[in-house]
Amino acid sequence: MMSQQDTFYMQMALQEAHNALLEDEVPIGCVIVCENQIIGRGHNMTEHLKDATSHAEMQAITAACATLGGKYLQNCTLYVTVEPCVMCAGAIAWTQIKRLVYGTPDIKKGYTQLTNASFLPKCEVVKGVLEDECRELMQSFFEKKRKKYETIC
Amino acid sequence: MMSQQDTFYMQMALQEAHNALLEDEVPIGCVIVCENQIIGRGHNMTEHLKDATSHAEMQAITAACATLGGKYLQNCTLYVTVEPCVMCAGAIAWTQIKRLVYGTPDIKKGYTQLTNASFLPKCEVVKGVLEDECRELMQSFFEKKRKKYETIC
Repeated sequence: MMSQQDTFYMQMALQEAHNALLEDEVPIGCVIVCENQIIGRGHNMTEHLKDATSHAEMQAITAACATLGGKYLQNCTLYVTVEPCVMCAGAIAWTQIKRLVYGTPDIKKGYTQLTNASFLPKCEVVKGVLEDECRELMQSFFEKKRKKYETIC
Repeated sequence: MMSQQDTFYMQMALQEAHNALLEDEVPIGCVIVCENQIIGRGHNMTEHLKDATSHAEMQAITAACATLGGKYLQNCTLYVTVEPCVMCAGAIAWTQIKRLVYGTPDIKKGYTQLTNASFLPKCEVVKGVLEDECRELMQSFFEKKRKKYETIC
């Protein structure tokens, strides 16, 4: 179930997405919250780090594990502006994150497209928090990229 | 199709798995090969780094991306002693790795259990290279852990 807190923390994730945008990265942001504190945050850095594994969620999970000093995040909620891909959903499963809250679905690469129903069995999943803002950020990024590409060609 | 080269590089991945074992980590090892050169290697480091994302494949992918200076590994083969989990298979998909060669299946956490048929559509997958060695390393590790646990309890 969605709460006011969810909207608040999704705004924090959107701030991270804007940070990605400033660096010309695909604008996806993530924060991980434990007992009302942000213990890890991240944004997509695949271009900057030249590493396809540097998604927002992976950055935030590594940061949160470092904060807590352990590899499990059982009492945490992960907020991410776009539905996680299979890789990131796999990481969420390993860390035993309790709640996953995402903004806009990813109809091509989202984990719900590619994994079966038994995936993330113990994780509460909430979708659609600030969906319009999260989607518009992505759409405007890719539209600009397309226009730039059309101008070059 | 399996080749002599596959056996050779799987032995290198097994060496990495032995390195994990020496550090009391789950003994899984990985190497990534491009034009007959190992450009990235890694072993499971989840306990040492206290980070559930530090699987052998993720370490090796990040290392290989750093070696090549780019986020795609299209002409590479990834050798890993145990079937990748969903997270690592997701990373393999993002990097566009051309071939995936693994030793022993993972019947609980392997990506083939949890993802659908369209996953990794462009990647040639070869399984069963040095399967016995890869499986026995895992079995012996977990048997020792169980015995230790039974002694404590």
